[in-house]
Amino acid sequence: MNSKFLDDVTHVKSSSKTLPERVADQIRQLIIDRHMENGDQLPNEFELAQQLNVSRGSVREAVKLLVARNVLELRRGKGTFIADNTGVVDDPFGFAYLEDEPRLANELMDIRRQLEPWIAAKAAEQANDQDIAELRVLQYKVEELIQSGQDHLAADQQLHIRIADCTDNRVLHELVPVQETIDTHAAVVDAIAAHDPEAAREAMQEHLKHNRLSLTGASE
Amino acid sequence: MNSKFLDDVTHVKSSSKTLPERVADQIRQLIIDRHMENGDQLPNEFELAQQLNVSRGSVREAVKLLVARNVLELRRGKGTFIADNTGVVDDPFGFAYLEDEPRLANELMDIRRQLEPWIAAKAAEQANDQDIAELRVLQYKVEELIQSGQDHLAADQQLHIRIADCTDNRVLHELVPVQETIDTHAAVVDAIAAHDPEAAREAMQEHLKHNRLSLTGASE
Repeated sequence: MNSKFLDDVTHVKSSSKTLPERVADQIRQLIIDRHMENGDQLPNEFELAQQLNVSRGSVREAVKLLVARNVLELRRGKGTFIADNTGVVDDPFGFAYLEDEPRLANELMDIRRQLEPWIAAKAAEQANDQDIAELRVLQYKVEELIQSGQDHLAADQQLHIRIADCTDNRVLHELVPVQETIDTHAAVVDAIAAHDPEAAREAMQEHLKHNRLSLTGASE
Repeated sequence: MNSKFLDDVTHVKSSSKTLPERVADQIRQLIIDRHMENGDQLPNEFELAQQLNVSRGSVREAVKLLVARNVLELRRGKGTFIADNTGVVDDPFGFAYLEDEPRLANELMDIRRQLEPWIAAKAAEQANDQDIAELRVLQYKVEELIQSGQDHLAADQQLHIRIADCTDNRVLHELVPVQETIDTHAAVVDAIAAHDPEAAREAMQEHLKHNRLSLTGASE
């Protein structure tokens, strides 16, 4: 990926950047240029300081910034590595700082209603047998957790992300929003297993409709 | 906003967190609990260290983490303030680290084709006269830049974000993806000005179709 693109997507304002921020940009570029990925080890502080012609202190501060941005992770006694889901942060849109949680829930649900039926239809077209087997496992897991009265939020999110992963669109993996849900997953997975996009779309619409009722009730 | 929600959206794994990360979480919670927003000043290092019962060094490291996550910003000689677009980071999904730029462009375009016609239709329903006047200004600005052969990417993005801001959905402001485009904006703004959702949807679809052709050409 070229540096023009990196500049575009990260809106580089180099004039106002501190030295550690500029060193962090150089390390970002090095990761991209060398096609480093999740689990690869970064050169150590001494080597980086030499290569980038800056002090070790600046490298250390830059690494802290990149850890905060989930580009790098420190493994105690082992060194610095490229993080899983490189550069993808928790709560990337700062939802925690938005006022009015019920309104936010509705805003997210509005977007889900646009995207998730389409994702389900794409999944029905593109899912292979392995995908479907894994969806079934997650569907049963969610059902089991609900029946035994346990928290099923994490498993539920996993299922929605796994449905998105049946498509060939990597962005959807990040985009499938974080929202509490209830049931009606069975119909969605059934339709994907039958490779029936129209039924998958409808089942997901139905699922989100139930969801909305539950959210509206819970958020008051 | 309650701390249960913050935990949910930020996937707190407190066991594996460093001290500065835990102090950063406490400062996040303080910002939320006090309803602090963009431009409000954070208590100084000394006060925070006392309130949170930690060292000033830990507060300083925590503040660095929150600056890296665009929660806080430092103003030289003035202090630490809540950042504009609190907690919203550049390139939140780490696109810079994904391989295969042409594929990424197509993945983003696929999602835009789902969302933007719907956004245009919502804007047509909800835009007021002020919204429409501002859209016209941006539309003319993009046209002018194109005609004079200047870079219109930033103005183009502004227009798409402003269209999203005609809706009452705050999440769309963050979600409208970053992608290079060409023209055909006039028809979109015309339809929004006429409060005609169907025409707005179609104009945006047409706009994205042109776009795709240009992207496919440019990305080979």
